[in-house]
Amino acid sequence: MGVNSHRVEDFSCHETSLRITTEAVMPPMEIHSVCLPPQQTTLQKLKLRLGEIFFPDDPLYRFKNQTLRKKLLLGLQFLFPIFQWGPQYSLRLFRSDIISGLTIASLAIPQGISYAKLANLPPIVGLYSSFVPPLIYSILGSSRHLGVGPVSIASLVMGSMLSEAVSPTEDQILYLKLAFTATFFAGVFQASLGLLRLGFVIDFLSKATLVGFMAGAAIIVSLQQLKGLLGIVHFTSKMQFVPVMSSVFNNRDEWSWQTIVIGFSFLVFLLTTRHISMKNPKLFWVSAAAPLTSVIISTLLVFCLKSKIHQVSIIGHLPKGLNPPSANMLYFNGSYLEVAIKTGIVTGILSLTEGIAVGRTFAALKNYQVDGNKEMMAIGFMNIAGSCSSCYVTTGSFSRSAVNYNAGAQTAVSNIVMASAVLVTLLFLMPLFYYTPNVILAAIIITAVIGLIDYQAAYQLWKVDKLDFLACLSSFFGVLFISVPLGLAIAVGVSVFKILLHVTRPNTVVMGNIPGTHIYQSLSRYREALRVPSFLILAVESPIYFANSTYLQERILRWVREEEEMIKANNGNALKCIILDMTAVTAIDTSGIELVCELRKIMEKRSLQLVLANPVGSVMEKLHQSKVLESFGLNGLYLTVGEAIADISAVWKSQP
Amino acid sequence: MGVNSHRVEDFSCHETSLRITTEAVMPPMEIHSVCLPPQQTTLQKLKLRLGEIFFPDDPLYRFKNQTLRKKLLLGLQFLFPIFQWGPQYSLRLFRSDIISGLTIASLAIPQGISYAKLANLPPIVGLYSSFVPPLIYSILGSSRHLGVGPVSIASLVMGSMLSEAVSPTEDQILYLKLAFTATFFAGVFQASLGLLRLGFVIDFLSKATLVGFMAGAAIIVSLQQLKGLLGIVHFTSKMQFVPVMSSVFNNRDEWSWQTIVIGFSFLVFLLTTRHISMKNPKLFWVSAAAPLTSVIISTLLVFCLKSKIHQVSIIGHLPKGLNPPSANMLYFNGSYLEVAIKTGIVTGILSLTEGIAVGRTFAALKNYQVDGNKEMMAIGFMNIAGSCSSCYVTTGSFSRSAVNYNAGAQTAVSNIVMASAVLVTLLFLMPLFYYTPNVILAAIIITAVIGLIDYQAAYQLWKVDKLDFLACLSSFFGVLFISVPLGLAIAVGVSVFKILLHVTRPNTVVMGNIPGTHIYQSLSRYREALRVPSFLILAVESPIYFANSTYLQERILRWVREEEEMIKANNGNALKCIILDMTAVTAIDTSGIELVCELRKIMEKRSLQLVLANPVGSVMEKLHQSKVLESFGLNGLYLTVGEAIADISAVWKSQP
Repeated sequence: MGVNSHRVEDFSCHETSLRITTEAVMPPMEIHSVCLPPQQTTLQKLKLRLGEIFFPDDPLYRFKNQTLRKKLLLGLQFLFPIFQWGPQYSLRLFRSDIISGLTIASLAIPQGISYAKLANLPPIVGLYSSFVPPLIYSILGSSRHLGVGPVSIASLVMGSMLSEAVSPTEDQILYLKLAFTATFFAGVFQASLGLLRLGFVIDFLSKATLVGFMAGAAIIVSLQQLKGLLGIVHFTSKMQFVPVMSSVFNNRDEWSWQTIVIGFSFLVFLLTTRHISMKNPKLFWVSAAAPLTSVIISTLLVFCLKSKIHQVSIIGHLPKGLNPPSANMLYFNGSYLEVAIKTGIVTGILSLTEGIAVGRTFAALKNYQVDGNKEMMAIGFMNIAGSCSSCYVTTGSFSRSAVNYNAGAQTAVSNIVMASAVLVTLLFLMPLFYYTPNVILAAIIITAVIGLIDYQAAYQLWKVDKLDFLACLSSFFGVLFISVPLGLAIAVGVSVFKILLHVTRPNTVVMGNIPGTHIYQSLSRYREALRVPSFLILAVESPIYFANSTYLQERILRWVREEEEMIKANNGNALKCIILDMTAVTAIDTSGIELVCELRKIMEKRSLQLVLANPVGSVMEKLHQSKVLESFGLNGLYLTVGEAIADISAVWKSQP
Repeated sequence: MGVNSHRVEDFSCHETSLRITTEAVMPPMEIHSVCLPPQQTTLQKLKLRLGEIFFPDDPLYRFKNQTLRKKLLLGLQFLFPIFQWGPQYSLRLFRSDIISGLTIASLAIPQGISYAKLANLPPIVGLYSSFVPPLIYSILGSSRHLGVGPVSIASLVMGSMLSEAVSPTEDQILYLKLAFTATFFAGVFQASLGLLRLGFVIDFLSKATLVGFMAGAAIIVSLQQLKGLLGIVHFTSKMQFVPVMSSVFNNRDEWSWQTIVIGFSFLVFLLTTRHISMKNPKLFWVSAAAPLTSVIISTLLVFCLKSKIHQVSIIGHLPKGLNPPSANMLYFNGSYLEVAIKTGIVTGILSLTEGIAVGRTFAALKNYQVDGNKEMMAIGFMNIAGSCSSCYVTTGSFSRSAVNYNAGAQTAVSNIVMASAVLVTLLFLMPLFYYTPNVILAAIIITAVIGLIDYQAAYQLWKVDKLDFLACLSSFFGVLFISVPLGLAIAVGVSVFKILLHVTRPNTVVMGNIPGTHIYQSLSRYREALRVPSFLILAVESPIYFANSTYLQERILRWVREEEEMIKANNGNALKCIILDMTAVTAIDTSGIELVCELRKIMEKRSLQLVLANPVGSVMEKLHQSKVLESFGLNGLYLTVGEAIADISAVWKSQP
């Protein structure tokens, strides 16, 4: 028949093995055979695969081809980034860092006190947490702009999860122990994610999920602050929308007009400064200084009017002095250990997500790289150290980092400066907070969390991807009405479901030729593309897995049926060959291989030829290993759709 | 510059809009613009999407363009397949069906009694279950070869799950009630999967999972039968390996040598007949008739020797008569309802998987189609009806269907014949089973389940797909050592994890040109492929999702870094342009879109151009909706890699 060179004889080819159709009518066309990927042993493949999973960024590439001395130095710099920028540190950099450090300190002190209250912890713990962790981070962290300290989301989640198990007012000591223990486990969890290079776990909190989660959390936190803002004494410790709202309205007799007036005045003041800074980023210091200003003014106000306004609740006595050690307070056995571990993991993952995202954002602005896994270790060790020195969960805070960046921070020294300012406060200034009204903390918290409601991002999600929007909504309502961990779990579930749905119901596209080219494209998308008579070209746009092999079989058979009906209606050329374009079939499993066999058999019974075009490396390998290729034998496998059509048409013409 | 026609001006094109490069050096080359898919409203898209999810096979296509009368007839045939083959039923078909029906009846009677014991139910329930369900299936079912009745796996699972909650010996009535209730819920679950067209749920039990699960279940069942085979009286009701084995060896004093001799003799006999039939499928009747023969011989044996061998336990009295109604025994409130529902769902899904798989297997052999969703409804209604007539879970049994097929069954009438034979047995022959020894039932069960251990399939999994093998192993060991539902859950988890892993760590491939062609292929796979100077062509082989956008960013930047290092080492042409081949990027979400923007920005800062080649329809649509394409603007989007290279090179040459 003269075309016996069309065969796919040698799958393990690595040289050019061209196959020329000798058909007279067609212009000579090269037919390329499909190659297997280079042979590898199972061990080599496993090594490569694990390398891709755990070391995609090839973190050790800097160490290649270096002397031992250089390698040691690089290793030191790798573990402690301070050795990287430390030697070049100059007075000029220090001047920038001292200004930004003092600026974030003015934000950190009121925020620390407020967030600790959000977590139902004594206010002083918030200040402790703004002292030790920033110092640790400045040695270990690789971001130059991260402002470290407690953050609203993690505080909220810790407060809500722990207070469901233990009352923070009735059993203060146990509650504090659980908080430190949760912090310890958060740190261990974070550090191990980094050490085991499992950083991709946090990728499963997609942006869509986070947008919904943050907005829900912000609303819950703001509503919770109505306690302070309205001066209510008896308030639920629950975090869901319904109990919080009923607490607000069932205790109307406890509302205090003095508190309300002070609270809302300062809230308006804080929101205005926030608005100013957002309109003009150069005026960042307006909103950065506002919380401390509010604290000072309101404290003075309450101090001066203390005889007249005793309805307004105040912070009261705060102990002076540095962080006391708390390693002895860690709680490693007993019935609450599970709660502590669970809280640790949830707050750990949330604070990690915020810290890494913030670090990456500012690194991108200044065009340097932040290594996710290293950051996780830094944040993890910072929390482990924190849990032994009376701190609760800390991470890179978005508000603090933004102020830090805008104030011109150059290195992690700004964190050291901030820690020093907090140190001075802890040692000498604590008595000044005696008369600070709690209502001002509520106003500060509301102002901080209101920015987490990103309705524009939600609208964008709706516009671009309805399923992403659904994930966003489910985390929003889940957090608002059910609980924080469940809301998050539901949202992650929706995100994963989306991936599975894409795999379960993949697209199949009928393709045609764009005349005068070798291009084959979707017929429904490119009107210029034309059907090739006697051929049905189908592109499968997904891996072929157990989850979709049944569907694909049904769908492909339906395409064939519809094609045949159309040909019948139009009196066209009978269908003779089906080409499966496998370019986008990026993986196949044993069920997928069975599908290919099955399809081949069904088509054979109907006297239709089934050929595969351009299977990717891993698919080719599995088809080969499972001996399916043998059943395909001659003319069953082509490098491109065009070559398949040319070659098969030539065979048909030579055998009339 | 003379190349202003290179622009992607009109994304909503549907006509041929060719763009000709007017560059003198290059031969004129057509540059095609990338089209958006046809405009659709959200509602249209939703409709299309839901259509693909729930009606991929377009089940109503037969009704198109038909008269109302014809439509009604087709509808009736659609709901009750008996109307499809009934009118053409002939004596010739009946002759085949009567032979096969009687053959499976001879298998069904001993199997029914044995499997009921496996589910800890009275043996008579097994016979009831071989009477009503086959009748219902013959009206509703669309498979012509399915032999309906109780099956080993579902019986085992029901027995194991229910006896963990209620003792089948101490609280017989409650146990029976729960079994009927579980059957009812299994039926409701199966029918609703079919009605709601959620049949793809069973696809998540991949073949790999099932191979492991079946093997584990078969071993557990066989070990459980040691109770009967060794004549042990006190035996655990647990289903895990460890308690079963300790039951066997801790009760060595209860071993009865008479039972052992009878048991192992018949076991050897049954296994031999099984072996004969497997070697020669024409001798299928040898293994089909063996169980009934064994029952008859062993019963006679015990009857004759009853004065000598009283250690051998016998079935004893069985009530005569038809299925009593059991709708009044369904249990819809109380503390065990949850167990019943859970058992119903697990046994429902398992029996469905077996039934559908068996139906499809034999349909494929005879080249007809079985509609999965319709089969689910048939099996579901059969179980609902069964639960009201003293039957427990039934489905299409593999062993029975194979015998049915080999005996030449033509239609579902063979099920009616079988049911009639069971009817005669129930009405008249029950007293004959009084002396049947329990040990023979154990031997029958072992022979039936031993075929479920498919070590060749497991070896094939190991050879072709290591992760599939892992899923297989986890379901095997999960069932053997933990519990049936947990083992299954773990295996499904592993399968889903595999899909996620593929998405989380997708392949990226560096491509080169095969000289003299427009083909671009992996450099590592095709040795003839050559790098294109100044270009880096990367193919991403997966959708770009939140779960991989961080990884892809790192990985792509690493490719660029490595490419630049290699160029430096070889003194090659400086890298100027990165082409992302998006052919295999079958979907994108908002995180993926952000990655594209981010990459574009990073490359711009490094004075590198980033262009996209051949985005698929849905990706193109999202890029368009999110306004990312605007940032790409001119020369950012090409239909093929070849056109991108031709066009960009032309621009470079025109602007030296």
